[in-house]
Amino acid sequence: MTVEEKAAQLGSVNAERILTDDDELDEDAVEEWLGDGIGHLTRIGGEGGLAPADAARITNELQEYLETETRLGVPAIPHEECLSGYMGPEATTFPQMLGMASTWNPALLQTVTETIRGELEGIGTVHALSPVLDVARDLRWGRVEETFGEDPYMVAEMARAYVDGLQGDGRADGISATLKHFVGHGATDGGKNRSSFNVGMRELRETHLFPYEAVISEANAESVMNAYHDIDGIPCVTNEWLLTDLLRGEFGFDGTVVSDYYSVRHLETEHGTINTKQEGAVASIEAGLDVELPYTEYYGEHLVSAVEDGDLSESTLNEAVRRVLREKFRKGVFDDERVDPDAAPDAFHTDEARDVTREAARQSMTLLKNDEELLPLDVDSVAVVGPKADDPKELMGDYAYAAHYPEEEYEADAITPLSALEDRDGLDVTYEQGCTISGPSTDEISAATDAAEDADVALAFVGARSAVDFSDVDADKEEKPSVPTSGEGCDMTHLGLPGVQEDLVTELLETDTPVVVVVVSGRPHAIEDIAEDAPAILYAWLPGDEGGPAIAETLFGEYNPAGKLPVSLPKSVGQLPVYYNRKANTANKDYVYTDSNPVYPFGHGLSYTEFEYGDLSLSADSTTPLESVTASVTVTNTGDRAGTEIVQLYTHAANPSQARPVQELLGFERVDLEAGESKRVTFEFNTTQLAFHDLDMNLTVEEGPYEIRVGSSATDIEATEDLEVTDTKTVPKTARTYYTDSAVDAE
Amino acid sequence: MTVEEKAAQLGSVNAERILTDDDELDEDAVEEWLGDGIGHLTRIGGEGGLAPADAARITNELQEYLETETRLGVPAIPHEECLSGYMGPEATTFPQMLGMASTWNPALLQTVTETIRGELEGIGTVHALSPVLDVARDLRWGRVEETFGEDPYMVAEMARAYVDGLQGDGRADGISATLKHFVGHGATDGGKNRSSFNVGMRELRETHLFPYEAVISEANAESVMNAYHDIDGIPCVTNEWLLTDLLRGEFGFDGTVVSDYYSVRHLETEHGTINTKQEGAVASIEAGLDVELPYTEYYGEHLVSAVEDGDLSESTLNEAVRRVLREKFRKGVFDDERVDPDAAPDAFHTDEARDVTREAARQSMTLLKNDEELLPLDVDSVAVVGPKADDPKELMGDYAYAAHYPEEEYEADAITPLSALEDRDGLDVTYEQGCTISGPSTDEISAATDAAEDADVALAFVGARSAVDFSDVDADKEEKPSVPTSGEGCDMTHLGLPGVQEDLVTELLETDTPVVVVVVSGRPHAIEDIAEDAPAILYAWLPGDEGGPAIAETLFGEYNPAGKLPVSLPKSVGQLPVYYNRKANTANKDYVYTDSNPVYPFGHGLSYTEFEYGDLSLSADSTTPLESVTASVTVTNTGDRAGTEIVQLYTHAANPSQARPVQELLGFERVDLEAGESKRVTFEFNTTQLAFHDLDMNLTVEEGPYEIRVGSSATDIEATEDLEVTDTKTVPKTARTYYTDSAVDAE
Repeated sequence: MTVEEKAAQLGSVNAERILTDDDELDEDAVEEWLGDGIGHLTRIGGEGGLAPADAARITNELQEYLETETRLGVPAIPHEECLSGYMGPEATTFPQMLGMASTWNPALLQTVTETIRGELEGIGTVHALSPVLDVARDLRWGRVEETFGEDPYMVAEMARAYVDGLQGDGRADGISATLKHFVGHGATDGGKNRSSFNVGMRELRETHLFPYEAVISEANAESVMNAYHDIDGIPCVTNEWLLTDLLRGEFGFDGTVVSDYYSVRHLETEHGTINTKQEGAVASIEAGLDVELPYTEYYGEHLVSAVEDGDLSESTLNEAVRRVLREKFRKGVFDDERVDPDAAPDAFHTDEARDVTREAARQSMTLLKNDEELLPLDVDSVAVVGPKADDPKELMGDYAYAAHYPEEEYEADAITPLSALEDRDGLDVTYEQGCTISGPSTDEISAATDAAEDADVALAFVGARSAVDFSDVDADKEEKPSVPTSGEGCDMTHLGLPGVQEDLVTELLETDTPVVVVVVSGRPHAIEDIAEDAPAILYAWLPGDEGGPAIAETLFGEYNPAGKLPVSLPKSVGQLPVYYNRKANTANKDYVYTDSNPVYPFGHGLSYTEFEYGDLSLSADSTTPLESVTASVTVTNTGDRAGTEIVQLYTHAANPSQARPVQELLGFERVDLEAGESKRVTFEFNTTQLAFHDLDMNLTVEEGPYEIRVGSSATDIEATEDLEVTDTKTVPKTARTYYTDSAVDAE
Repeated sequence: MTVEEKAAQLGSVNAERILTDDDELDEDAVEEWLGDGIGHLTRIGGEGGLAPADAARITNELQEYLETETRLGVPAIPHEECLSGYMGPEATTFPQMLGMASTWNPALLQTVTETIRGELEGIGTVHALSPVLDVARDLRWGRVEETFGEDPYMVAEMARAYVDGLQGDGRADGISATLKHFVGHGATDGGKNRSSFNVGMRELRETHLFPYEAVISEANAESVMNAYHDIDGIPCVTNEWLLTDLLRGEFGFDGTVVSDYYSVRHLETEHGTINTKQEGAVASIEAGLDVELPYTEYYGEHLVSAVEDGDLSESTLNEAVRRVLREKFRKGVFDDERVDPDAAPDAFHTDEARDVTREAARQSMTLLKNDEELLPLDVDSVAVVGPKADDPKELMGDYAYAAHYPEEEYEADAITPLSALEDRDGLDVTYEQGCTISGPSTDEISAATDAAEDADVALAFVGARSAVDFSDVDADKEEKPSVPTSGEGCDMTHLGLPGVQEDLVTELLETDTPVVVVVVSGRPHAIEDIAEDAPAILYAWLPGDEGGPAIAETLFGEYNPAGKLPVSLPKSVGQLPVYYNRKANTANKDYVYTDSNPVYPFGHGLSYTEFEYGDLSLSADSTTPLESVTASVTVTNTGDRAGTEIVQLYTHAANPSQARPVQELLGFERVDLEAGESKRVTFEFNTTQLAFHDLDMNLTVEEGPYEIRVGSSATDIEATEDLEVTDTKTVPKTARTYYTDSAVDAE
């Protein structure tokens, strides 16, 4: 390979640079960008806006060009964005990830991503830029909706399942998953996208790096994407310790590191650490960045000139090229079989996908409050109000294709709550929007309260809008009806409901009609007053294509909700951070007018039935380090209908040598229980999972007492048992266990 | 010395444990606590509430007891709290430190602390627990008022002056200063007192450790106090790297480390890292903590038993004892001359002290806005409104003795703004409070607006209350008229004016009368709407005993204000952090509805006259590392009255190898200018001051372009000049310069 050909393997080109206006290939552009070969192809279907058959056809044509018209004949890795689904036309939209995390059901998430994989494979995609492993620690950040919440163990469990579903069992099949954003995007200064990340080494490893280490240890993720920000001054994209020493050396990652879009450019435009493109290219590739995305701008010719100038060793270039080619071999791109464009549409929007997204939406429903058993509803008439009831786009997260286009331009195939309610036989439904999502007008609120007065119950659908606006977002934001207040780049200085939605709820609560507040939002909102005053609150997150029916089934009780919060809901933005696993000196300090507790804690969620926990039983009272321990508890459905309880296992270091989190999630399990039924849940964990980093930053299991806790939320601990670790021992990498096993047996 | 006698030297006893109800010594208690000798005596005057003569007398009696009734005859180090003055009866109260920082006048601060020193010496005090070197990065923290603001260089300059004034020239004289809270109390999680501090090593060194290193390098501070919190899990009080390797080893500190009150206990009650008092004692002394304060609880007998048990080497104990005894020798406590109790009152409240606090209050006045030259006032009548106008306690910070007692119990000797205004000849003054500080009632606002309507101008005195409440602070806080919302333990989730004060201002602004808002508060408040709507805003901070006259003189123009903000004022709590020296990727990222800029930036402050800057002139365009450079600029008073400009020197690394702050303060100078006068300000800095820590954490001056800037605030840069550093070089400790010299010459 020539140096030019090698450099080409580390680059990409995005759809808009090589497509004509009528969705055909621009031959000159193809020759320009692909003439020496190419590493990736960026979002042919998604950015190109191509229907599945066209996406498959164009991808085939590009691979054909590479195979036949370039000297080496090496096909590309076509990658797409996906998170709650493929981010392209005709994709099925699943619940956004914070909703998926609320299911506490990794197996279901795996089914979801297997389904996403089917759609991506249908168009010849090989690689996708997900999942998000960021631990959500600053809720101002707009991308919190993309995460699996505030707990590193939960993130690891869900991310492993995401990867397993997307990649499949063998590497020859499936879609390469990309773990992102490496590392710490969920805790940057001010909760801003791409701002600095200020963190201590122990916190970095135990909170933010843990999910990467855990997922890489078991799930063989094919790719990792660097984060935009700097950590203590060092931009991640040029952080050799991070991308090479730690990731490849210590964690044993053997895939490709791809850049978050434009993050090499940001060295020049944001961090100010480079002066020339060549400097950026050299600093990035030497740190361990293999592929520049979304298109070759700082790599390519600048890598070539760097080698020519002696600024870059060709062996460094070779190593990166080797990794990219290794992925190509593993993913079978050299096989000349291409996908069949005519069959591509068959992979999309299957009945099975519809069933999966419906079940995912159901399981994401999180019932926060239900006074006097207002839910499930047994009423003849409902007033549907609020700006999140009647727009299919409002059920989708950022990174869902449909959410980014106005309905007249791209019709979303989602069923709204209003539509699902209107479809119910014998239910009298009236609808008044009451207010827009973010506009200032309260003029229509009285129509909504009038509608409420005339109905048996009022259902208020409220929340933030995700994804970018359809018009100029900068002009007159205060006046706009639907400014995006969640999603990438939509960081907020307050966490309440946008616009006048809280006024709408307040006025509804002043009517004589009971009000159920349904939060349809990617954001964990600060809803202290609503939590105080509303009789029932259902957090529906962004439930995707089948969100409406899933909400309606839950409200009327055909589905018994079981979701639990993957993130603590704060009282206000000024109370942050409120995550449950703070250290005691932070968790227990109050403010002048506000205590330190969230409105609803991590792990909280109600059911229409009730559960009772028996005593917790450990396989041993004491253990040496590196040994496994089982913890089991009997859970009984004491109500009169079937339901599902999510049993949570926590650990508390009772006398550690360092200040430690007040408790840490150690495992969880969903238990389906008929009325009156009991089942035994058994967790098996290894004491290495209790380890933390000693003064010399060695991961160490420390002798002493630990309290093992089982509960239905972080604050509803139902049973505890003491476990004594009898010795202190450094954990060898090979002896480390990352995940707790669990099983449910009949009692 | 026996082990018991040694342990006793590392302890203390506080006033309440050894004083009877009638302010005499409890002989049994004295024998119990002082029988083996003692290290410190804790707040005999301040906690004892003793008038100066009594404080001196009791201190003498205790020293006499130690000299004559203990085997070794070693007197104690009597320490007191002081910050804006001695925290005891009859002390002069100076402006709280954030106000002192607004003067940008270290020499004046030195005069202030020389004056404080006089009062402390009058009662036989040897050691004081100040100054505060915390860099204020989270404005929710109640103790921000005690700091010198958000910039590490500013903190270092002011803290050096504080120490120089308090300690005096020689160590035999003066009061031992205590640098606190080591380290990082101004940036803890959630802005809470004592919560965890999560920080990277580079940020820790360059922002939070810098002031300690700088002050220790020049000012020989006698003592350092550990912070309460943990850093990345390690409580500061047991952090050997921090208290020993870094502080004594690298920084060369040779004084005593004293515990923040109860911080050894907190190992058990907050951090959970110890089980027994002996464990706490051993962990703390081995880390480098010499003296437990406020009284011997975990040290004392537990150190003795630890030595007996072989848990603690006697040589470790000896080393700590040696340090305490060394301070006693240095401070001359072995001289049997004691202070004269009869003369003690003469040291207090001298005319000189009154002059100093008046001048300090004047110079702290910070004029933020002055539309259409509303100020200085030229009116016949004023309506004085607001809850901060008529209570002497409201002019004082936390850690001011008088602020902690109701007026009927302890009368403050401060002149209120209302009283100072009423004293003005020919001025018609009406007064309506309008509302309380924190109560919910808006009933009296209309009386205030009526008063405003009838006056030429309305003066609204608003702000937070500092210091603890006089009654139960936990009950019905929302209803209370004067809940403390600034000061220790008074952390807030919102930064607006407390209670309904903003409503008061809003309604005043709706009258036809011009309104001057005078913020009398220790807090940097979020006052975005007031900044938009009010024609004039004077930030008076907590100006102390002469605050009223200083405010009145400023409003009416006998004094021309010159103060500048030592902290950026945010738009809301959700916008934090807004400090000026963020990195570019944080500083330049907006939120959905809010940009990233503060309402008023660091360094901002207006005058009644105007200043013009000439070009910046550097002594060289390029320099090798470790060389000095001078930067000079001519400043001209172009207005028609005398005034003072605070000239600020900043540096911006134009192409560093790391993401760096957008700019950093490098020096500042106050320039007094008659109308029409020009002066030349010359700064001399060393290029080592441009250094930062490389990848291996070596402090390094990096080659490349730097932009040297001079401005009247962080955002009003008046002139810039490029400086090229021609080489990269690690900075040897001995070559490091911490402070910029400056001089002002006639033009």
